[in-house]
Amino acid sequence: MASSVDLNADLGEAFGVWQLGQDEALMPQLTSANLACGFHAGDPLTIRRSVALAREHGVQIGAHPGFPDRVGFGRRDLAATPEEVYADVLYQLGALEAFLRPHGAKLHHVKAHGALYLKLHADPAIAEAVAAAVGDFDASLPLVLLAGAGGAEAARVARGRGLRVVFEAFPDRAYVAGGRLAPRALAGAVLHDPERVAERAVQMAAGSVTTLEGDTVALEAGTLCLHGDHPRAVENARAVRRALAAAGVQVAAF
Amino acid sequence: MASSVDLNADLGEAFGVWQLGQDEALMPQLTSANLACGFHAGDPLTIRRSVALAREHGVQIGAHPGFPDRVGFGRRDLAATPEEVYADVLYQLGALEAFLRPHGAKLHHVKAHGALYLKLHADPAIAEAVAAAVGDFDASLPLVLLAGAGGAEAARVARGRGLRVVFEAFPDRAYVAGGRLAPRALAGAVLHDPERVAERAVQMAAGSVTTLEGDTVALEAGTLCLHGDHPRAVENARAVRRALAAAGVQVAAF
Amino acid sequence: MASSVDLNADLGEAFGVWQLGQDEALMPQLTSANLACGFHAGDPLTIRRSVALAREHGVQIGAHPGFPDRVGFGRRDLAATPEEVYADVLYQLGALEAFLRPHGAKLHHVKAHGALYLKLHADPAIAEAVAAAVGDFDASLPLVLLAGAGGAEAARVARGRGLRVVFEAFPDRAYVAGGRLAPRALAGAVLHDPERVAERAVQMAAGSVTTLEGDTVALEAGTLCLHGDHPRAVENARAVRRALAAAGVQVAAF
Amino acid sequence: MASSVDLNADLGEAFGVWQLGQDEALMPQLTSANLACGFHAGDPLTIRRSVALAREHGVQIGAHPGFPDRVGFGRRDLAATPEEVYADVLYQLGALEAFLRPHGAKLHHVKAHGALYLKLHADPAIAEAVAAAVGDFDASLPLVLLAGAGGAEAARVARGRGLRVVFEAFPDRAYVAGGRLAPRALAGAVLHDPERVAERAVQMAAGSVTTLEGDTVALEAGTLCLHGDHPRAVENARAVRRALAAAGVQVAAF
Repeated sequence: MASSVDLNADLGEAFGVWQLGQDEALMPQLTSANLACGFHAGDPLTIRRSVALAREHGVQIGAHPGFPDRVGFGRRDLAATPEEVYADVLYQLGALEAFLRPHGAKLHHVKAHGALYLKLHADPAIAEAVAAAVGDFDASLPLVLLAGAGGAEAARVARGRGLRVVFEAFPDRAYVAGGRLAPRALAGAVLHDPERVAERAVQMAAGSVTTLEGDTVALEAGTLCLHGDHPRAVENARAVRRALAAAGVQVAAF
Repeated sequence: MASSVDLNADLGEAFGVWQLGQDEALMPQLTSANLACGFHAGDPLTIRRSVALAREHGVQIGAHPGFPDRVGFGRRDLAATPEEVYADVLYQLGALEAFLRPHGAKLHHVKAHGALYLKLHADPAIAEAVAAAVGDFDASLPLVLLAGAGGAEAARVARGRGLRVVFEAFPDRAYVAGGRLAPRALAGAVLHDPERVAERAVQMAAGSVTTLEGDTVALEAGTLCLHGDHPRAVENARAVRRALAAAGVQVAAF
Repeated sequence: MASSVDLNADLGEAFGVWQLGQDEALMPQLTSANLACGFHAGDPLTIRRSVALAREHGVQIGAHPGFPDRVGFGRRDLAATPEEVYADVLYQLGALEAFLRPHGAKLHHVKAHGALYLKLHADPAIAEAVAAAVGDFDASLPLVLLAGAGGAEAARVARGRGLRVVFEAFPDRAYVAGGRLAPRALAGAVLHDPERVAERAVQMAAGSVTTLEGDTVALEAGTLCLHGDHPRAVENARAVRRALAAAGVQVAAF
Repeated sequence: MASSVDLNADLGEAFGVWQLGQDEALMPQLTSANLACGFHAGDPLTIRRSVALAREHGVQIGAHPGFPDRVGFGRRDLAATPEEVYADVLYQLGALEAFLRPHGAKLHHVKAHGALYLKLHADPAIAEAVAAAVGDFDASLPLVLLAGAGGAEAARVARGRGLRVVFEAFPDRAYVAGGRLAPRALAGAVLHDPERVAERAVQMAAGSVTTLEGDTVALEAGTLCLHGDHPRAVENARAVRRALAAAGVQVAAF
């Protein structure tokens, strides 16, 4: 059993007057936060506030770069070239880290958002582009990728670039063969009961997951992602922390 | 007589498919370039290209942050709060400097753009906000301000924040009493003859300017700005360099 | 006493995934709704939904054009030229009305948003620009302006352009001499008690308002604006409707 | 032989201070112009100017809606849903037509831009969405689609919605079997010699095209598109007009 696991969530997704998520309530439950960088969500004032909130709670800050598609929240695939992706990611990393400077801090990791996250797992040229941007910005920054078979190719690319990879698993999502995420359309793809989510988190911290087919497969996960937009996000987070504590797993940033 | 003066221009002001200015032709004439950071102009690919072009010619790179008003090119005054200005500038500094990292380089200075440049000279609270952002990003970065009486108050604020200030003068613009820029509406406010611009540059490098009223007044200027959007921009730049060389003034970044 | 008054609110101010206000709860209380047109808030899908919601409740739809400043929600003054304002308003009117076509409907009125609303009341050249855009789009569209002395100059301009003007008053805001809105910074500038707001609405429908100084002054108001972002917006609206009914004032679109 | 053919180009693609294309020189050669509507290019002032220019030259104005991807100029495929495409197109049609009202005019046709144009030809659900938006805006507006086999499915969809379809061919592009456009990557895909382009235009007006394979196939084309961004765009246009005149083909809007 892993002695320690990280808990992350995607935060800082407000924009201007528009709020989103439950950052204030969720932040204290986390050990790392992926903050939107102004392309799919976030704006300079939101970033400043989100960084301050994370720092206040001792939460490590990762960059959460996305496609330049604010009205679509970065959830729509965009046929950006690898050159465009490289430049878009580099821009967002720099913009976000600027707000850590007054705190004497640096970015802790990078995790792509939405359609960019999916695309870099599906297209090695996009994985190359993201990895190159991260490497050129700060080669010591870990890149967070999907645990299981879905993340294998992108991990190979990132490691080929000399990056450290940290895999993430989703305790509130069902898995299928190969440790792949069950498509959302599938019945039972999302777990709603905080106790079930918590049990799942403990299993994941111990290195495996039971799939929808009923098999238990190995799943290496250095961080567990809690969905901030889940209606029971805070409840889930608390249940997960209780269960991990009861199982003797320390919750700490990777 | 100053032994040395810097020549700067505002470049990198393309956006997407849209070109602007004559960066390729002007860059070799400069010792420093102020690059748009993506708010009033510029985008990640444009920034990447502009940084590469500047590096190729050994030109120092400054940030040229502006208001978030792309359709207005950052030329329209915007009633942004000091908090918004602080965050907008910090964001842009970080975004631009990210593209210098692959070159092993850092920003050389900061010069605000358009309406933000005017506002920080007119409103000490905005000067405070810009100076705080620069100081929080990198306290060693000089802030470029208007030479003459127009820049005095902003310089006081910036120096109060511990920043180094470099003053800029415009050899292709007329000046009035106090070493203030003549308003563009005034007859003769813009000099069109490259030889006149070049003479003016030599006089400025020597620390003075002859005003429209005919008085010669002291003007401390560490850098001379050449307008990239001037139809004879390249011709002006060549004439200025020839005249400075003839006068024994070295052209070098501050 | 007026036999009838209109109740309006600014709605449709979501953007992409970001919600704002309480459109579903507030719409049934209104007789007219001012919908954001995509510049300061709103996007094509939001507009489509908001138009459908208004139509479902028999609520008349006005355009609520604003400055192109999404991150600032159109609340920051922008030094746009009259030509820019004319074109920005015309664009937004056309974009919004397109969504009424599938309903066989047309725009009912125009009311500018935020900083543009304030600017057109303060600057006759901007009032001219807005009035020209409305007139060129559909000269039969009424323009909603501030009731009281604050709206007099803009009304003169709009009427000079042949537009019909409808004045709006704010039952949840205090007034001072001349029937001018009390600045928000003033103690008591915002009324919080729904019953007080409702009394005020009845008085306004009857053509007067009692100022903070204690004087009762005439105030011509064809429509009363309910703030959708007020925490008690729906409660206020219900109280206003009850009080108007009790006073024998019909609530109907102008 | 067709007695008449329309000549169109995509214009109004400036944005803010950024110019693009040669609208002034090209407009007098055209009978219809497709104007950008503010999403991939264009802005309210640009639209106003472009509409005035077209009207001055008696050129019919079509809407040229694109994806909301300004930095990518609408050339990148975006996984927008049919609902999003419907709303985006409806919004753009309304916004553009607003600028025709002061001229007492209406839109003449609709032609989608870039990646949206390609997508509606490849995906019947997107064709449905575009056709629905056009039909809901003004069911008398023709939709311009690709001539040849590439446009057949979209035409079926649009006609199923009751729309009139006009096919366009590209005299400066090579064609392959089925009257399909040759991919740009293919050698000889773009014709550079104005005389060759002009001959091709005459052949297309007569209802056929000779493919790269050497076959002459039927091609129904009501309008011929001249690329405004082609370096010899104006020269091409003049050559085409001369050749059509010599062949007795009238140039007139459809």
